[in-house]
Amino acid sequence: MKNILTRRTIRKYSEEMVPEALLERLLSEAARTQTMGNLQLYSVVVTRSEEMKAKLAPAHFNQPMVTEAPIVLTICADFNRTSEWARQRKAVPGYDNFLSFINAATDALLFTQTLCNLMDEEGLGYCYLGTTVYMPQMIIDTLQLPQLVMPVATLTVGWPAEEPPLSDRLSVAAFTHDETYQPYTPQAIDTYYHDKEQLPENHRFCEINQKETLAQIFTDIRYTKKDNEAMSEGLIQALKHQGFLD
Amino acid sequence: MKNILTRRTIRKYSEEMVPEALLERLLSEAARTQTMGNLQLYSVVVTRSEEMKAKLAPAHFNQPMVTEAPIVLTICADFNRTSEWARQRKAVPGYDNFLSFINAATDALLFTQTLCNLMDEEGLGYCYLGTTVYMPQMIIDTLQLPQLVMPVATLTVGWPAEEPPLSDRLSVAAFTHDETYQPYTPQAIDTYYHDKEQLPENHRFCEINQKETLAQIFTDIRYTKKDNEAMSEGLIQALKHQGFLD
Repeated sequence: MKNILTRRTIRKYSEEMVPEALLERLLSEAARTQTMGNLQLYSVVVTRSEEMKAKLAPAHFNQPMVTEAPIVLTICADFNRTSEWARQRKAVPGYDNFLSFINAATDALLFTQTLCNLMDEEGLGYCYLGTTVYMPQMIIDTLQLPQLVMPVATLTVGWPAEEPPLSDRLSVAAFTHDETYQPYTPQAIDTYYHDKEQLPENHRFCEINQKETLAQIFTDIRYTKKDNEAMSEGLIQALKHQGFLD
Repeated sequence: MKNILTRRTIRKYSEEMVPEALLERLLSEAARTQTMGNLQLYSVVVTRSEEMKAKLAPAHFNQPMVTEAPIVLTICADFNRTSEWARQRKAVPGYDNFLSFINAATDALLFTQTLCNLMDEEGLGYCYLGTTVYMPQMIIDTLQLPQLVMPVATLTVGWPAEEPPLSDRLSVAAFTHDETYQPYTPQAIDTYYHDKEQLPENHRFCEINQKETLAQIFTDIRYTKKDNEAMSEGLIQALKHQGFLD
């Protein structure tokens, strides 16, 4: 994985198409990822048409990547296919429950990340859209997802037409714990977040947004309690609608 | 990613230790994975001690890999560290909700899979334990996970001492959909599951378990409705206990 250290999210793509055969090969290779009981509890909806990209865009806050990328992939937790298989084989499926959603979502996300790593090696650019779980019902309706299929990840994919700077990361010490979880002391927080807080771009963010601390940008603007609570409710409703929750 | 096509789950490990420096390098590289708002909403508890492995084992149905592997990694969805940071920076975190759990679990699983792919390239063996979400409260108690930290994945890691056969996979056509999700017809199910159902080892499974179809092995023995429903309840209780659900 020669490109992992220079991995960056790519939001601007060239006009060049991504060949069908290349996409199919990468999907096939990504499917080597471990999966629960070898059931492959995921499906991928491939969007290439302008019309469908335009329909998906609002669910992703109209971020321009959705309509500008040659391909949009919506990766879904899928217990529908397995349940259909069971029903046609004199077996009674029991996957309309929350554990089964988590199992299928896990399969789908692990598959997604191998696909991302493969695309990095191939020189393809992608942007992972976390918005997929913000307003999932819009995506469910647009892609006509049946019961026991739930979108969990979206990737916009194309050949890179930009080379953005690498983003910073916390040190390994900041997120690892030996044997048991060690509470974060104020001193530890200061140490682990020091470099991030000192970055010139983060100082600028604070100035532009008139915030005293970088953390306030996250809590007050980017990921607020109010939004999180409203979208939690929508997410839970969508899980009920898809049959994964009572 | 030269090893993706020969990837296999490794359950038997040699006596050779995994150097600290190697593990740290791989964790550092895996942290290049995209993450929500660059917050890295995960933490990793590293278990090397025999005592802690023995304590973790029951949560994983005493599968022998847990006590036999040199290293056990429990990867957690973690909004505790970010919330602590916020509190110490005059910011009020709002991450005690379901969307925030899904966001952090996503970060944790994507990180986990890059780590798996890096280990494959390094020749390290691992087994992904799906049991992590079956009885999460036992893991929470053992690893002393605080509020807003939830285990979502476990990897047993070591140098391979076996080379099991590759497992089969569905064709790409079986799990991809163009533009909208296409319902699976009985003919499509027959086509997509034909090879799997014809494998000699799957015929043997049916004979040994006295089942008419392979699907019944999954629905009646491996992943039953009764177990799924009971473990769903435990998982939801654990999410409430950790502060991610009301």
